[in-house]
Amino acid sequence: MKTYIYGKHPVTEALMHRPDIVEKVFVDQEQHPEIDALAKKKNVFRTSFEWKLLQKKLGEHAVHQGVAAIVDVERLATDVHSFLDTLDTTKKHGVVLLGEIQDPQNVGSIIRSATAFNLSAVLIPKDRQAQITGSVIKASVGTAFRIPLVGIGNVNQTIALLKERRFWVYGLSGDAEKNIRDEYFEENTAFIIGNEGKGLREKTSEHCDEVLRIPIDANVESLNAGTSAAIAFYEWSTKHSNG
Amino acid sequence: MKTYIYGKHPVTEALMHRPDIVEKVFVDQEQHPEIDALAKKKNVFRTSFEWKLLQKKLGEHAVHQGVAAIVDVERLATDVHSFLDTLDTTKKHGVVLLGEIQDPQNVGSIIRSATAFNLSAVLIPKDRQAQITGSVIKASVGTAFRIPLVGIGNVNQTIALLKERRFWVYGLSGDAEKNIRDEYFEENTAFIIGNEGKGLREKTSEHCDEVLRIPIDANVESLNAGTSAAIAFYEWSTKHSNG
Repeated sequence: MKTYIYGKHPVTEALMHRPDIVEKVFVDQEQHPEIDALAKKKNVFRTSFEWKLLQKKLGEHAVHQGVAAIVDVERLATDVHSFLDTLDTTKKHGVVLLGEIQDPQNVGSIIRSATAFNLSAVLIPKDRQAQITGSVIKASVGTAFRIPLVGIGNVNQTIALLKERRFWVYGLSGDAEKNIRDEYFEENTAFIIGNEGKGLREKTSEHCDEVLRIPIDANVESLNAGTSAAIAFYEWSTKHSNG
Repeated sequence: MKTYIYGKHPVTEALMHRPDIVEKVFVDQEQHPEIDALAKKKNVFRTSFEWKLLQKKLGEHAVHQGVAAIVDVERLATDVHSFLDTLDTTKKHGVVLLGEIQDPQNVGSIIRSATAFNLSAVLIPKDRQAQITGSVIKASVGTAFRIPLVGIGNVNQTIALLKERRFWVYGLSGDAEKNIRDEYFEENTAFIIGNEGKGLREKTSEHCDEVLRIPIDANVESLNAGTSAAIAFYEWSTKHSNG
């Protein structure tokens, strides 16, 4: 699927890390000479930015900053087997699996935080899960082109695959007994982030090795899904041992 | 200023915690009998939800779930002197000061996380800072009615006031030397969150007792402002001692 992306960060990141999937860049050469030069260097087709035409394609609320591109998002994600087969087994890895996250802002925010905290991949189910779009890429400030995105089918089968590769699989839930602060993350780690309203599916939760709670005020229902994920990644990144 | 708020959580929270500033509730009695009953109990004027009329007022993208209200947001915030004068000095407090946060989503998200991690207030400058609107309240899932919001004038004068009350004032910045993980938060704590693009103002930074860094990958420019704030609150809440 071809998707429009827009804004300085997303387009720059796409050209830096995945020029192979960028079909065309729309850029105002005077406003963004550095992006124009980068596209030229990466042999990507450049054309002038036509405001009126693009605003319509991008949607009324898109903040494009005078730069946009068409990317083939279908080729952005890799499959789970190639991902697992090429993992450097001398290191401990962290991954996150999106468990029916609906808000593109949250998906983008989780991708951004996963990149910042050095996770090795974001696993994205094909069903009942917001897919990668221009808004997701914008919310990720372009980090979606940098961290491996892995398309997956059945969530429970993927959990089984991860366990085979010695991943310890954690769900996050406000109802869990174990405080995330008390976990050491000594093995490969997979976090599963549940839906914004409904949380983790019961079936998914049963397949986890452990379900962890972020300690919050008992009177507050929950944290935002993107916020919970970032705190989990932070906690993991300060604890897991890599050499 | 009168503002429309919308959605189940925000309207319920307003009626629970600040019925005094709710002028009118628009509710579909069949769809939301519990909100209708709550409004009646709190002596708030109820009227039927007129979809077409309200969608126009709320904006095309507002997800209202069949319930809305008019609130007087001007009366939502308290002033800094009343706030500081009524603080329970037998406890250690945490507060957050918004330093030119522009995105209403981030403001709402910071309010939500501050409430979840038991901070005592959110300090909101009158200038160069996104103010409390319907979108902010929606993004806070209504916690804006629960945690004290404090309207402030000059940021540096407010920092001086906080220091008088034995608050230790921390800025957050990716360039800081000290890792937030190494801080103990033994005193009252004030976090200042800088602008999404430009970060903390230099002048503000100079007035901080300490500037802290959240450890992320050196190749990633920054975390989202709301995410950084939540991680700081989490770190504070797991360390500070309250009896």
